[in-house]
Amino acid sequence: MNFFAKTQKMTFDAPLSMQSGAFLQNYELAYETYGELNEDRSNAVLICHALNASHHVSGVYEEQENSEGWWFNMIGPGKSVDTNRFFVICINNLGSCFGSTGPMSINPETQEAYGSAFPVVTVEDWVQSQERLIDRLGIKTLLAVMGGSLGGMQVLSWTLQYPDKVKNAIVIASAPNLNAENIAFNEVARRAIVTDPDFHEGNYYKYGVVPKRGLRIARMIGHITYLSDDVMNSKFGRTLRRSIKKETELKDQNYLFTTQNIEFEIESYLRYQGDKFSEYFDANTYLLITRALDYFDPAKKYNGNLSLAFNAIKAKFLIISFTTDWRFSPNRSEELVKALLDNERQVSYLNINAPNGHDAFLLDDSRYMSAIKNYFSNIN
Amino acid sequence: MNFFAKTQKMTFDAPLSMQSGAFLQNYELAYETYGELNEDRSNAVLICHALNASHHVSGVYEEQENSEGWWFNMIGPGKSVDTNRFFVICINNLGSCFGSTGPMSINPETQEAYGSAFPVVTVEDWVQSQERLIDRLGIKTLLAVMGGSLGGMQVLSWTLQYPDKVKNAIVIASAPNLNAENIAFNEVARRAIVTDPDFHEGNYYKYGVVPKRGLRIARMIGHITYLSDDVMNSKFGRTLRRSIKKETELKDQNYLFTTQNIEFEIESYLRYQGDKFSEYFDANTYLLITRALDYFDPAKKYNGNLSLAFNAIKAKFLIISFTTDWRFSPNRSEELVKALLDNERQVSYLNINAPNGHDAFLLDDSRYMSAIKNYFSNIN
Repeated sequence: MNFFAKTQKMTFDAPLSMQSGAFLQNYELAYETYGELNEDRSNAVLICHALNASHHVSGVYEEQENSEGWWFNMIGPGKSVDTNRFFVICINNLGSCFGSTGPMSINPETQEAYGSAFPVVTVEDWVQSQERLIDRLGIKTLLAVMGGSLGGMQVLSWTLQYPDKVKNAIVIASAPNLNAENIAFNEVARRAIVTDPDFHEGNYYKYGVVPKRGLRIARMIGHITYLSDDVMNSKFGRTLRRSIKKETELKDQNYLFTTQNIEFEIESYLRYQGDKFSEYFDANTYLLITRALDYFDPAKKYNGNLSLAFNAIKAKFLIISFTTDWRFSPNRSEELVKALLDNERQVSYLNINAPNGHDAFLLDDSRYMSAIKNYFSNIN
Repeated sequence: MNFFAKTQKMTFDAPLSMQSGAFLQNYELAYETYGELNEDRSNAVLICHALNASHHVSGVYEEQENSEGWWFNMIGPGKSVDTNRFFVICINNLGSCFGSTGPMSINPETQEAYGSAFPVVTVEDWVQSQERLIDRLGIKTLLAVMGGSLGGMQVLSWTLQYPDKVKNAIVIASAPNLNAENIAFNEVARRAIVTDPDFHEGNYYKYGVVPKRGLRIARMIGHITYLSDDVMNSKFGRTLRRSIKKETELKDQNYLFTTQNIEFEIESYLRYQGDKFSEYFDANTYLLITRALDYFDPAKKYNGNLSLAFNAIKAKFLIISFTTDWRFSPNRSEELVKALLDNERQVSYLNINAPNGHDAFLLDDSRYMSAIKNYFSNIN
């Protein structure tokens, strides 16, 4: 069933004091809401988005085909997060390229696009800015905050920064911080962007170019880490590209013997994903968001002791991981569970046997959808 | 104990008919030998090198410090492959940038560097060219052929193309072919090189430039896949770069809040590896060698049935894998073992519990070194 989404904007004049020490003035947040806020304002559910997503989490835009939000399978009337019962909010993160103030916005100090002058933003900064918007909507307590991957980190940060404002936290395919391998992949992606001659130190807007070469590489790397080895083998394996075309003269499936042209189907898939991404995503945003991922580490000021860090938490938790997710593997979710149990917090944990790797958190899976539905049925 | 290595060259005038249908005329192979060929020429051991290595497998170059060959810990007088007993040969592969004919060599047809005109070379082509050199040395049968990773694929190809010329095959940290994820990583690396504006469609030599940006990215990706998650965490973890410098004023370990500068130690390591590689490795060679990896697939003409493909093999096998190698995981080695057993061939298999990922095949590990030593003690 289709239902309509509409982007709204909210402007903030009080400067936002960021973790880096920088201040952001006069910023704007794009957001969408679904369902109705009840009279005592107790049915609000905040969804936090991940790396390349936006506030458009569900619904469709009027008169715009194929405009379903990125969690359309999860959120809506009668769905796992039922918008007949809950008032769902999703806010585009600061630094994004989808509507909230970001590197493409005009810097009031220079009257030019921020570019690389946009302050480095952290998960904590995002949550702080989200809290202001929630407060402006007149919501004192969120019934739930929910997110996958980087979205899950924002959920954690909500329960730590505003322990009295979150009743339930749903953290999916996430981790208490990035490990060295995660940071390594982010760094390669960033280097591909930054060393693209069209990057111009982040001020490419005024040159009328986009560092597409770098964005393509960044996205290709991302896609490899989103998928599991198993699903890559079953989806693509060693299938040659042109066998897809079923041209009879090519039925013998011999190699083309080329180093620069596409030979395997997996190459075609990755190039397509890279090309598509480079058409719509902003390079400075990619740098900022991957860095926010790198920096998130709530245990840092407790010498790495996550149990100490989680002492402030009051929310009840549902934590979900996926067996084949090697980007944020189940043992990272188990670290969260352990730190919550060490503090005698209420936590349910589900490790779902799914073949799709990290991507699983965005896909339909009946056990996954039921688990969320059940949790929300009994929520309070 | 130091012993000296000396590069030799051998020229071949008979054209090499390559798998792609191309012919290579007048090529030269660089190689090194260690130890003495015995009178009945029965003690020859051929070592096949992997992606970025060369024929300089052991020994040191006279009057050149830190010039140990890449398998110096494995090969030499009294070592696991004892050059007091064996005549060890290592040949630089065609297409390389370390002495054998490759993209940097002069194309006799144009009197310019081959560049991207150098024919696409396969594992089978390499083995064919190696066999000619072995034959020229008067060796009719190799006591052993040994290699790790891509080197292991050459060993497999030797036992398939020249079943009567190989008595023992030692295949380490290898696989019967690349899986989709392996190809994906290779493809991203290649795209980074090919889309570097300094690549000039492979003919950068005449522009006096090198696609260093692409080479750096390629190498950074490579290094991530060579290491295990565990060893990355224990070696680098989330350590900040400047904590290494132990500057007291930075002792609080606060973030720098930067997207373009180095923040974490792992970033510093990867950038260093990328920079170093881009100084000495040829971009066209990188394309050729990663493609040779992609193409290798002896089961291809048997509809993916490796057991059928291995029916031609006569050699005895020692196969070694490493538990934390996710580039060529142990289950890929087990596929080799199974296909050999299906054909009732003699095979010993060792899966070594080592933390270092794919890199383990180049590192000192007493169990690993002993296993090779023992195998060679009883070899015949």
